[in-house]
Amino acid sequence: MPDPIITKKYHFCASHKYGNPYWSEEKNREVFDKDYNTHGHNYILEVSVRGPIDPESGWLVDLQKLNNIVRSKVVDVMDHSQIELDIEWFKGKQPSSENILVWAWEEIAPNIEQGILHRLRLVETHSIHTDYYGPG
Amino acid sequence: MPDPIITKKYHFCASHKYGNPYWSEEKNREVFDKDYNTHGHNYILEVSVRGPIDPESGWLVDLQKLNNIVRSKVVDVMDHSQIELDIEWFKGKQPSSENILVWAWEEIAPNIEQGILHRLRLVETHSIHTDYYGPG
Amino acid sequence: MPDPIITKKYHFCASHKYGNPYWSEEKNREVFDKDYNTHGHNYILEVSVRGPIDPESGWLVDLQKLNNIVRSKVVDVMDHSQIELDIEWFKGKQPSSENILVWAWEEIAPNIEQGILHRLRLVETHSIHTDYYGPG
Amino acid sequence: MPDPIITKKYHFCASHKYGNPYWSEEKNREVFDKDYNTHGHNYILEVSVRGPIDPESGWLVDLQKLNNIVRSKVVDVMDHSQIELDIEWFKGKQPSSENILVWAWEEIAPNIEQGILHRLRLVETHSIHTDYYGPG
Amino acid sequence: MPDPIITKKYHFCASHKYGNPYWSEEKNREVFDKDYNTHGHNYILEVSVRGPIDPESGWLVDLQKLNNIVRSKVVDVMDHSQIELDIEWFKGKQPSSENILVWAWEEIAPNIEQGILHRLRLVETHSIHTDYYGPG
Amino acid sequence: MPDPIITKKYHFCASHKYGNPYWSEEKNREVFDKDYNTHGHNYILEVSVRGPIDPESGWLVDLQKLNNIVRSKVVDVMDHSQIELDIEWFKGKQPSSENILVWAWEEIAPNIEQGILHRLRLVETHSIHTDYYGPG
Repeated sequence: MPDPIITKKYHFCASHKYGNPYWSEEKNREVFDKDYNTHGHNYILEVSVRGPIDPESGWLVDLQKLNNIVRSKVVDVMDHSQIELDIEWFKGKQPSSENILVWAWEEIAPNIEQGILHRLRLVETHSIHTDYYGPG
Repeated sequence: MPDPIITKKYHFCASHKYGNPYWSEEKNREVFDKDYNTHGHNYILEVSVRGPIDPESGWLVDLQKLNNIVRSKVVDVMDHSQIELDIEWFKGKQPSSENILVWAWEEIAPNIEQGILHRLRLVETHSIHTDYYGPG
Repeated sequence: MPDPIITKKYHFCASHKYGNPYWSEEKNREVFDKDYNTHGHNYILEVSVRGPIDPESGWLVDLQKLNNIVRSKVVDVMDHSQIELDIEWFKGKQPSSENILVWAWEEIAPNIEQGILHRLRLVETHSIHTDYYGPG
Repeated sequence: MPDPIITKKYHFCASHKYGNPYWSEEKNREVFDKDYNTHGHNYILEVSVRGPIDPESGWLVDLQKLNNIVRSKVVDVMDHSQIELDIEWFKGKQPSSENILVWAWEEIAPNIEQGILHRLRLVETHSIHTDYYGPG
Repeated sequence: MPDPIITKKYHFCASHKYGNPYWSEEKNREVFDKDYNTHGHNYILEVSVRGPIDPESGWLVDLQKLNNIVRSKVVDVMDHSQIELDIEWFKGKQPSSENILVWAWEEIAPNIEQGILHRLRLVETHSIHTDYYGPG
Repeated sequence: MPDPIITKKYHFCASHKYGNPYWSEEKNREVFDKDYNTHGHNYILEVSVRGPIDPESGWLVDLQKLNNIVRSKVVDVMDHSQIELDIEWFKGKQPSSENILVWAWEEIAPNIEQGILHRLRLVETHSIHTDYYGPG
């Protein structure tokens, strides 16, 4: 029987500033436009885990354990940070939703013991979100 | 041409209480925590049907017919119930979102005559939802 | 200068069952309909505080202090309860949104030290909410 | 490495009226019911693009370029239109969400130069949306 | 004790077209812009009633009775209509949210027997809504 | 006849950092906690205007004119800024929602020519918003 997928949402606020040090001011402004300024977002991270139902608990994953992983590895690190300055992984990378998802996958996936990480979604604004299904 | 998928949302309110009769009070409280108390939710059930577009109506499914199935088989049964006490199927099972989806699939899927049931999503709280694509 | 009003939202899940012991089964069923069954909701409580801006912090109230009051006095008491059975105040009263607001006002208002409680809103379902401005 | 998928939401308002000229008034009213009247919706179109992350920008697609395509080809055409009267493609077809998605895919997919169009979702009301993954 | 206020949301879809017959085409297009075309919306009508709590039911108003009034007098009339063509009251008036609220107030307020109509809110799009507290 | 009130929502993203230069590091950290770091939000500004209905247009305010005022005076200034560094008014003040509303009122209220500014609401996160009715 194919397994159900449970999704839990987490919130954090962070600031970021795009900028490619190998580009001129003009090119940075042309490509990144207002994202070349420091600004910020209320991010929503949706973590989806897939797995068989444990018949004793009725659950596919214990959400308290999932909360502990996601909060300690991702939410508490990201929350109230300036991403590209405060988190080592982002040195030399742009603080985009796409890159945040690659980083968050590396932080969360190996730590899940019940079920497997199925998808991460990062909601950046009311009209933009990005999905990532892992490195395959 | 791959078929489009239409999704319709339904609402119901219900109460439930987790508890495994083969476990001690301590283990029930440890695993289920506050879910070992009777409590309740405003559930949202999202029903997705996939199928070819009928060229005469422009629709892949007649939503009035879908409403009739989902309301009579699932929503009217669940609404204002205490799930594990009032619905026979849940005797000896936990009233989790995962199990509600397995039950709802059995109730809805065989009754759809136009298109096929693609996915059920159950939104349990503002931050938790579960998806199920059927027993395969 | 009239004071701004800040609003913070809190979530809890609870079950309840309406029923007037002085009424017949028929009248209870006629008036309360499906609410005469145990069922439940994901409630959202919105707490609004009004007051002058503290020029040193820029805030009208310290939200950590407000969180402590609202969580200890209301959210932790309500969450995962069956309201009319578990909370003494509701003995002999219906567990309606209207009554929950009267109770919550008594619990929160006297404990706020910065600003004053302006309004409580209780969202009971996706289409129903109730506001209360206190006993005047 | 599998590619992330970014989704951007767009809004437009339009009116439409269903009706099959080969059917009797009775059959039109029976099948389409109130949809046989002119009425309208606030539509939300969600456009999802999949592709590898550009290491220089951190993005899989430049959203300004995507906005230009979607607005000029779909949103500005649909907005404040009566769909089946004003847009040539819908002559002889029903102005259903299913058909709007087939039309919008033809308008958007060939114009995307970075990444590929992964999915279109059209939200028609607060409880109905339709997904389309293209003609395959 | 000041009375609580309960709010119930209702949905309807309708189309409308602005246009002042005493104005030139140019002025109509200048003032109404794209609203001079037939288009439509998913409206949400929020009906707020204020009143004392009935100690026997715990409610300030019986929502089933309120539903009957609002649906028969407003929602069923508006739903799937072209407002300025189908509803007599709007002959010679613009089908704006402001005018819809004046009309809806006249339809609902005199029919409420328990409590009094406190406010009507009409949500026209995801970013626009209008409130009306009655003719005073 | 009391006047209706129309509300329009606007979005902007910004970063900010709290900090009182007359306080020690310890006190800044104690009072502002994680807000003493640079972080950011997706803000929603709701602008409410109250006034009589113009019988010729059916509107109480021309939203295109309102949009021009709010965007040029507030949204374009705030969007993608670091508030306390980039906007002169905030020198020596905390970049709180309370203060943003006082500033925005001064920018918007004197420029509205049809109707009067009734309320500003600033939504800072999914669970916090602040209202301001002006300096009275």
